Amino acid sequence: MVEFKSANDLRLRGGKYFMAGISIDCVIFGFHDGQLKLLLSTVANVGDWALPAGFIYKDEHIDDSAKRILKERTGLEDIFLQQFYVFGDPNRCDNNITKNAFEKLQITPPNNNWLLGRFLTVGYYALVDFAAVNPSPDYFSDQYAWHDIHQLPNMAMDHGAIVQQALLTLRIHLRYQPVGYSLLPEKFTMPELQKLYETILDQKLDRRNFQRKMIGYGILKRLKQRREGVAHKAPYLYSFDLRKYHKALKEGFQTSW
Amino acid sequence: MVEFKSANDLRLRGGKYFMAGISIDCVIFGFHDGQLKLLLSTVANVGDWALPAGFIYKDEHIDDSAKRILKERTGLEDIFLQQFYVFGDPNRCDNNITKNAFEKLQITPPNNNWLLGRFLTVGYYALVDFAAVNPSPDYFSDQYAWHDIHQLPNMAMDHGAIVQQALLTLRIHLRYQPVGYSLLPEKFTMPELQKLYETILDQKLDRRNFQRKMIGYGILKRLKQRREGVAHKAPYLYSFDLRKYHKALKEGFQTSW
Repeated sequence: MVEFKSANDLRLRGGKYFMAGISIDCVIFGFHDGQLKLLLSTVANVGDWALPAGFIYKDEHIDDSAKRILKERTGLEDIFLQQFYVFGDPNRCDNNITKNAFEKLQITPPNNNWLLGRFLTVGYYALVDFAAVNPSPDYFSDQYAWHDIHQLPNMAMDHGAIVQQALLTLRIHLRYQPVGYSLLPEKFTMPELQKLYETILDQKLDRRNFQRKMIGYGILKRLKQRREGVAHKAPYLYSFDLRKYHKALKEGFQTSW
Repeated sequence: MVEFKSANDLRLRGGKYFMAGISIDCVIFGFHDGQLKLLLSTVANVGDWALPAGFIYKDEHIDDSAKRILKERTGLEDIFLQQFYVFGDPNRCDNNITKNAFEKLQITPPNNNWLLGRFLTVGYYALVDFAAVNPSPDYFSDQYAWHDIHQLPNMAMDHGAIVQQALLTLRIHLRYQPVGYSLLPEKFTMPELQKLYETILDQKLDRRNFQRKMIGYGILKRLKQRREGVAHKAPYLYSFDLRKYHKALKEGFQTSW
């Protein structure tokens, strides 16, 4: 791991340590109070809103790069993080962040600067507990903020399209695998889980079908405890059986036909 | 597009035209006679079985690269082709095809040869009508052959693991979107479609649930024709409504909850 003094230090010296031509963009979703949020940062020296991003050390596994970037940016470890797509339009870098930063700072980089060529980017999406994340500016970002998914600002390069693809993928994944564990507190009720799903899918779901499907995955534990302080019949609390969950993630979930 | 005289010509001169550090591997599935097959080729000058692979021209969209490679290798166009994963283990290139080829041919490449560094590879899987594909050796391959998915030979580098990941992804995709159109003839019966699914999933499915799910996608057309020459009740023929199919592929399939 290499320490960089500033975003520009990385822009000028990073080519020695990172693979050229390929980056990682993290689409970090958080859930709070019935709303789906997205974590964005503003790029140092440029100011545009952008996805927290980073690069792959020359000897680093790409999945480790994604985990490291997420940790460097949010402080979070062991959360749900999934590769979902490679964005490979050659025009996506025409108006790139590095070029704009050099221009703003009136720096003339060497012609062969590693960041000025074409970059593909690999998208990873992460699901985090909104309340657990409070990122503070780092050398690459002036500020961080959570944005409502329905009110996103303009973003640098193709980051807006990357977010839409992540959201589409997340909605598809939700249909065949439970993804809620890192968005909810450890114990939750079935209505709370359903609310999470409805928020992500942006649609109402049938209560009985939903419950049958979730139970059918075989990875929820019903606890003896019930939720207290609820007006009507107190609902049961559930938690994820993480051992079974991770096994199923690896081997595929058995859904009914 | 650049013409290369041989695999070695590409190995020595390709760095001028292609992005370094990233390749594309195609996992080409075919269906025939109740069997799922995989198309492999042997690499020129090396002889190992490997996935048909290629590189990304410096100004080419990655999805266009995949289509082009598939066309160059199999002659096929307009088939189901889906990006599914980026393989990014730094050790995957330790025993790489190019190095082995240079050694066998006793060629000493320049130190900075573009193919001897680390490569990530993007996996695309393709579903093709087995009967429509008859690839002949090209400058990069000594031979092509279809292999039964249950009897695969040893493959170069991490290609064996790439195939397993493609198969897992295909099985997952099958659970929420119909993928059969390019594996079946234009008109087919529901039992034929079910047989295809059972072959890919390697499991028996309930006839009524299967039919309900397929009809539920809203992208099958039931034809007036029935299959003739069948002993019992002649089953209806179906075909895919490709306009609706491509719309749903883009926007996500509505499945029931």
